[in-house]
Amino acid sequence: MSYEFAPEIVSCGKILRGGFAGILFLTFAVIALQAQTKTVAERLGHPADSKLLIIHADDLAVAHSVDTASFEALNKNAVTSASIMVPCPWLNEVAAYAKDYPDADLGLHLTLTSEWKSFRWGPVESKNKVMSLLDPSGYLWPETAQAASNLKPEEAEREIRAQIERAMAMGIHPTHLDSHMGVLFSKPELFAVYVKVAHEYKLPFFFVKIPGIPNQLLALLSDKDVIVDSFAMANPTVRPEEWKDFYLNAIRNLKPGLTETIVHLGHDGAELQAVMVDHPDYGSAWRQRDFDFVTSAEFKKALDENHVVLVKWKDLKKLLN
Amino acid sequence: MSYEFAPEIVSCGKILRGGFAGILFLTFAVIALQAQTKTVAERLGHPADSKLLIIHADDLAVAHSVDTASFEALNKNAVTSASIMVPCPWLNEVAAYAKDYPDADLGLHLTLTSEWKSFRWGPVESKNKVMSLLDPSGYLWPETAQAASNLKPEEAEREIRAQIERAMAMGIHPTHLDSHMGVLFSKPELFAVYVKVAHEYKLPFFFVKIPGIPNQLLALLSDKDVIVDSFAMANPTVRPEEWKDFYLNAIRNLKPGLTETIVHLGHDGAELQAVMVDHPDYGSAWRQRDFDFVTSAEFKKALDENHVVLVKWKDLKKLLN
Repeated sequence: MSYEFAPEIVSCGKILRGGFAGILFLTFAVIALQAQTKTVAERLGHPADSKLLIIHADDLAVAHSVDTASFEALNKNAVTSASIMVPCPWLNEVAAYAKDYPDADLGLHLTLTSEWKSFRWGPVESKNKVMSLLDPSGYLWPETAQAASNLKPEEAEREIRAQIERAMAMGIHPTHLDSHMGVLFSKPELFAVYVKVAHEYKLPFFFVKIPGIPNQLLALLSDKDVIVDSFAMANPTVRPEEWKDFYLNAIRNLKPGLTETIVHLGHDGAELQAVMVDHPDYGSAWRQRDFDFVTSAEFKKALDENHVVLVKWKDLKKLLN
Repeated sequence: MSYEFAPEIVSCGKILRGGFAGILFLTFAVIALQAQTKTVAERLGHPADSKLLIIHADDLAVAHSVDTASFEALNKNAVTSASIMVPCPWLNEVAAYAKDYPDADLGLHLTLTSEWKSFRWGPVESKNKVMSLLDPSGYLWPETAQAASNLKPEEAEREIRAQIERAMAMGIHPTHLDSHMGVLFSKPELFAVYVKVAHEYKLPFFFVKIPGIPNQLLALLSDKDVIVDSFAMANPTVRPEEWKDFYLNAIRNLKPGLTETIVHLGHDGAELQAVMVDHPDYGSAWRQRDFDFVTSAEFKKALDENHVVLVKWKDLKKLLN
């Protein structure tokens, strides 16, 4: 998807409303294309002008309902990839899935916020070593803006390292990293931590090319880093009845290059309604709509008709070596 | 309920099977009746030979399903009292209920284990200050026996103080303390911590009178401490079809004195089945059976016919002042 097609997705991200302030979380996730002699498509052995697409499910481990919907979508190849929230209480359920399905393309959704009202979590690291990550209740901050204001980069680094180590200790072999609610894109010091840790663990990491990136961020990248050219994600301006058309238009308007479609899967039942109470955006019904769409025959047909080449993060990980 | 009526409940407790070893968790919760000039019934203004009963729901905050079932039972006066697992992720949901229902009789189910397979939690305190509480994954130990073997009493004390402080900071005014999976009854050093902290916070705490208590434990108690004479709780020897009769017999055979019936409430749905997967004992269907029984007309009728005087922990708390 190009920016011309759906400019709102570039600046929107996960805008949390209700008790949550509107947040633009991709402000700093705006990385200009590095000089590469070959496109990502060519590096993967496809024609240079291929339309590559990662279909990515966020938020595994936050709720059983999210896990079951995401596992079903992964098993049906309705999504190519997903990422896991390591501090969340259903992590063992996801680790068991990862063991049963070693080919599943699972990354880590590095988590520095705890955004729901009824259901919360703290850090993986000892709290007294990451005090700037904690709200007054001792959980992670609920909002990206609060996290961005309060986080000490060295403490954010300590926590994301702890999350990676915890996941690996549980037998998860992450294929990539990304950032829950975009906290690691919210200011350059946090983005620097994200890139540094990803490089050390030799993991590809999600970021999107947008013109006008500060040179200080560009300087952090290596020639091997894989850059996502654009991304598509439903946002609160998309009405429920427009859901299918939003995604189908995104597919029809894909441009050559690497795109990631980010979806939030779940089943709209009692558990998810309670986790996401008072929060329709990225809420329970939203996640059911995303699940219904990605598992639909229309989505599969649109991908085929538009000659979309599906890509997994583990394919991109091989390019780093 | 007297020991003669249902001896199995005295020695059984929460026996966890499946991946869990059988555990007798009340070994040390065997406190002889202190010399009191008056019975608890008399201290509460009732005739000396009254049959006092606390109907107590355990495990609030462990799952949304447990919370909704317990809130409903509290609101219907189907249970008199309940206690909260502070380290669990649904704590905010329970704190909101406590705010909305300030008369609800809510204590703290001091939690030093994390026993389920798919869904786990860690301590409230900084992990590096309570390392003996953590299993190799960084969660609380799954089994009482493991906790009893590994816990340093000073770290258990640090954690239970943190749980009490966290609950109070969230606006919960606990009426009593008890111990999840009986860890604080599992050895004298832990029981000493439990009594010490309860005394400091001026909270009544659950323990049961059984003959033959070591003097070292008796020495910890004050004359004001309220002693539960007997307790009744379903255990894995009770078959599902016998559920109602187990409790009805317990009511019919109540003896004068203070009894606590401990129930585990929940709705047998997708969330609870996943939390308690592979664990029928104290599992999802078990909790539905308990909920169905305590909210039944037969239970209410049996209480009336047997002249049972329902008591709350907050009534007992007043006796400490």
